[in-house]
Amino acid sequence: MASNSGIQWYFDDFEVGQVLQTGSRTVSEAEIIAFATQFDPQPFHVDHDAGAASIFGGVIASGWHTCSMMMRLVVDAFLSQSASMGSPGIEEIRWIKPVRAGDTISVQLTVREVRPSRSKPDRGVILLLWEASNQHGEPVATIKGLGMFGCRPAPSSL
Amino acid sequence: MASNSGIQWYFDDFEVGQVLQTGSRTVSEAEIIAFATQFDPQPFHVDHDAGAASIFGGVIASGWHTCSMMMRLVVDAFLSQSASMGSPGIEEIRWIKPVRAGDTISVQLTVREVRPSRSKPDRGVILLLWEASNQHGEPVATIKGLGMFGCRPAPSSL
Repeated sequence: MASNSGIQWYFDDFEVGQVLQTGSRTVSEAEIIAFATQFDPQPFHVDHDAGAASIFGGVIASGWHTCSMMMRLVVDAFLSQSASMGSPGIEEIRWIKPVRAGDTISVQLTVREVRPSRSKPDRGVILLLWEASNQHGEPVATIKGLGMFGCRPAPSSL
Repeated sequence: MASNSGIQWYFDDFEVGQVLQTGSRTVSEAEIIAFATQFDPQPFHVDHDAGAASIFGGVIASGWHTCSMMMRLVVDAFLSQSASMGSPGIEEIRWIKPVRAGDTISVQLTVREVRPSRSKPDRGVILLLWEASNQHGEPVATIKGLGMFGCRPAPSSL
């Protein structure tokens, strides 16, 4: 199929131990507050003064905002050029250190498991470890995420 | 502390087996596309026609959008009236069924574990099962989430 020409990552292209590095993304206080106002309006996420007075000593990003920013980095790094068929879920998230206004985060991806589908030979599931760090090299969050990917079409169908 | 008067949920108030029901939230195609354009711009999340042509048969919400909507329901249901000290992480997410434009979701919360902190006697961690379902009663996603909560202040400090 000629329309597959933009796809660089099929299920077949993943190997345990592979490492990929995403680009980076800086988050502003306005973005932190805008996300949290919609989805996680706890005082330490949406209010400058309440954040400063909290145990965190300043506004911090909602953990869901951190995960969503990590997702965008992962989409831009490879998922948008992959045969992604969505995700059945996440095995674990750890929010290690707050993400604060002005922080710049990037993600390192490591392939942990490669599982061909038992019932559908045209696809398989990849377990990826996502490790986000900030501009100081400090870990801020990890995700162990599952992704389903289509297999590379057989040569006869090209 | 008089400023604690708005808090109805301290660590002490959780018991294994407790069930809480959130309100509900309806999501539009415009909201699905707006979220995904920022954080998860895969074709089946951001483009009406690409969604229709995909294995999903229509635009579906990013899994991170579904989790973020669930978070807002949980904040409104009880977290905003709790002694929440944030979350160390998530034990598992399962995206069971796509959330589509026009769907209305609500969440049932069940307390699974109550773990007093070993090192800090003023707090503890709760493991909650979040079960989201749509307007047809179909499960769409589950989250096993950790939350840290402060203990109720001793009477002598009131």
